[in-house]
Amino acid sequence: MLNSPSTTLIRGKFLDIQQTVSNPEDITQQMRYVDDGLMWCENGKIHWFGTWQDAQAILPKGISVRHYPEQLIVPGFIDTHIHYPQTEMVGAYGEQLLSWLNTYTFPTELQFQDKGYADKIAQFFLHELLKNGTTTALVFCTVHLESVDALFEHAAQLNMRVIAGKVLMDRHAPEGLCDTAETGYQQSKALIEKWHGKGRALYAITPRFAPTSTPEQLAKAGQLKQEYPDVYVHTHLSENKDEIAWVKSLFPEQTGYLDVYHHFGLTGERSVFAHCVHLEDEEWNCMHDTQSAIAFCPTSNLFLGSGLFPLAKTWEKQVKVGLGTDIGAGTSFSQLQTINEAYKVQQLQGNKLSAPEAFYHATLGGARALHLDDKLGNFSLGKEADFVVLDLHPTALQQLRQSHAKSIEDRLFALFTMGDDRNIAATYVYGQCVYQTEG
Amino acid sequence: MLNSPSTTLIRGKFLDIQQTVSNPEDITQQMRYVDDGLMWCENGKIHWFGTWQDAQAILPKGISVRHYPEQLIVPGFIDTHIHYPQTEMVGAYGEQLLSWLNTYTFPTELQFQDKGYADKIAQFFLHELLKNGTTTALVFCTVHLESVDALFEHAAQLNMRVIAGKVLMDRHAPEGLCDTAETGYQQSKALIEKWHGKGRALYAITPRFAPTSTPEQLAKAGQLKQEYPDVYVHTHLSENKDEIAWVKSLFPEQTGYLDVYHHFGLTGERSVFAHCVHLEDEEWNCMHDTQSAIAFCPTSNLFLGSGLFPLAKTWEKQVKVGLGTDIGAGTSFSQLQTINEAYKVQQLQGNKLSAPEAFYHATLGGARALHLDDKLGNFSLGKEADFVVLDLHPTALQQLRQSHAKSIEDRLFALFTMGDDRNIAATYVYGQCVYQTEG
Repeated sequence: MLNSPSTTLIRGKFLDIQQTVSNPEDITQQMRYVDDGLMWCENGKIHWFGTWQDAQAILPKGISVRHYPEQLIVPGFIDTHIHYPQTEMVGAYGEQLLSWLNTYTFPTELQFQDKGYADKIAQFFLHELLKNGTTTALVFCTVHLESVDALFEHAAQLNMRVIAGKVLMDRHAPEGLCDTAETGYQQSKALIEKWHGKGRALYAITPRFAPTSTPEQLAKAGQLKQEYPDVYVHTHLSENKDEIAWVKSLFPEQTGYLDVYHHFGLTGERSVFAHCVHLEDEEWNCMHDTQSAIAFCPTSNLFLGSGLFPLAKTWEKQVKVGLGTDIGAGTSFSQLQTINEAYKVQQLQGNKLSAPEAFYHATLGGARALHLDDKLGNFSLGKEADFVVLDLHPTALQQLRQSHAKSIEDRLFALFTMGDDRNIAATYVYGQCVYQTEG
Repeated sequence: MLNSPSTTLIRGKFLDIQQTVSNPEDITQQMRYVDDGLMWCENGKIHWFGTWQDAQAILPKGISVRHYPEQLIVPGFIDTHIHYPQTEMVGAYGEQLLSWLNTYTFPTELQFQDKGYADKIAQFFLHELLKNGTTTALVFCTVHLESVDALFEHAAQLNMRVIAGKVLMDRHAPEGLCDTAETGYQQSKALIEKWHGKGRALYAITPRFAPTSTPEQLAKAGQLKQEYPDVYVHTHLSENKDEIAWVKSLFPEQTGYLDVYHHFGLTGERSVFAHCVHLEDEEWNCMHDTQSAIAFCPTSNLFLGSGLFPLAKTWEKQVKVGLGTDIGAGTSFSQLQTINEAYKVQQLQGNKLSAPEAFYHATLGGARALHLDDKLGNFSLGKEADFVVLDLHPTALQQLRQSHAKSIEDRLFALFTMGDDRNIAATYVYGQCVYQTEG
């Protein structure tokens, strides 16, 4: 019997987290490991999930099942902050945030007025995500409409759930990268109408950061958010101390950096703020009260020398958080390498980031940060079937280490410490295999 | 014409640093890039090095030359601090130094009383070094004689210049890992007689660290150093604040942690101290005055949350320094990944680690830290022919990034930020190819 093209059945070892939690100690209890399981996907969604044994009662005869006997299957990773136009500039030397933007980023982004160039990089970028097991991302484009169209068009071909938006920037940037309060508003509105909710695409209103938008532009962004309350807001916050001082000098009427966004109506349950390395106490409270989320980007925070993000505080203050690679200030597309450095950033602060907690942030917790935990993040019935087939020992060193692992937590931790794109055996999006290694 | 087995000729693009420097600004001037060069090795040493054009005058007709037209050939990387018995325990979760030793390290090291096990891991370990382009390392074994024999035997088969020694440890460790002041002395002496200077092997007197040796044992170690002044001393220093407090309580007569080693005659031009994250000013002065060297181990210092090593101070105080992976507290055998994190550790302190400086530390500077810059670290005539053939774009992402690189410094920096073992196309030791990728 041939399966219908909309049907995918996968047998293997599965690991996910069943429920969101408000306390990291509760994560282990929510971890579900099925040593020999079956996932049945229909039309991109999870139709049935359980043990292989239980599946025998419901499996039609002769239906074809793809078996991964050795690998570990987990929900697709979620990247809560990344810039696709910066794909080509990972590893730009020697600067902290503000000079790094002027020296490297702005010249790179100027190329994206050319739709052909944007197409090429968008395609490359999405392939890199999939190669690294990332199935959903919240993405910065550039100020150019073309850059947004390119990304959504290619994501649509893959059926990927991508959230993205056109950068709003009307000052302190090169002319070719600036819009105006009015054109930024009009273009964003047109893109929302064109893309938001089309297939799996979702739109994010995307002011770069407070210093590159006039109060007028931020006001128009807030107006847009009022007109389309279910679109996202995606921006940067409190990454670098010079940046914070600059914001305070530009917006003397606001009580702090976050208050600029809050004042213009840009906080909320679909608002994601990248970095938040140096938040003040009242800003933590505002994040909590508005149900805004943080993207924690360890490789970027280290690469630009921004500082150490206090992850424990997200639990203490009950603020949603996900992991971000922040390419191109981040140094890897891999969520495994991102977790490696997240662990180190926490160790420097005397905070232990456990493997289950890291796994939570990369999957269900990340989905929650993106207000998508009703659709993504684990293998609950009805959720969208985005998942990754992990090879736990693609290298001799990982094989040696895994041979000594005593628990699923230990296996995960070794994976997070040593893993990279070689650990991704296959990536499935909306029930279809969209990437697999050659072997 | 067939080459003699002791003759190797390599054509390609070469990069090295010609002289040691006392100021990081001078490194770029010392960088030598030969776009089309020839290296002629005889009996393990560099017999001739220059441009391919100049080589025409001296090349015998019909001699066979291995050509690497696309790659970059650099001196073999030098790892100034690594524990081979910890190869299997990279990524051991959740502890800082002292509890990490008790929970993970000591149980792992107990296995090395078995020569067969030590053989297996030594072989694996040396292969991992070569796979990562590391041709010389300063290596901790365990307390067991067998562990030292295993490492030197396998290194001899590869003709590798390895410096290693038996751990001295007579307190605060499990019984099976302890010697005594007297047996530690006698066994070390026997190993020095057996191995030091045999082929390329060099011996290091290796007290684990001050807390696990009694004053009697440190005195015997000092006696050994006096009897064999040209052997090395290899130990740990000032890695973690609890460790430092412990040393101060154990050795109240000494003025500080380094003074313990200094008091027992263990500082000097062949002494290498791993970590030195929290040195006090008078300790910096003592390091300088005794010409002792530091092994900077960024992935380890982050993984154990030890702290941020102040690299700029090594220039200011004129203290020799090399890079160490510190496997198994470090998280990668790769000097490229080590440099990636070294850069980040410096960024957090507002210090820019340039690509040329990083390259210096990984090659000639590392050789100098090991008092081997007369034998290793660049392509000077008469030096030992240890070198690495680098592939600058083994992945699509690196290829994209390198296509935008504007200078050799930029190419190196991109390599250091994104590189891993996949960038090592081949490794040559003493003129012979001992590792190459399959492709």
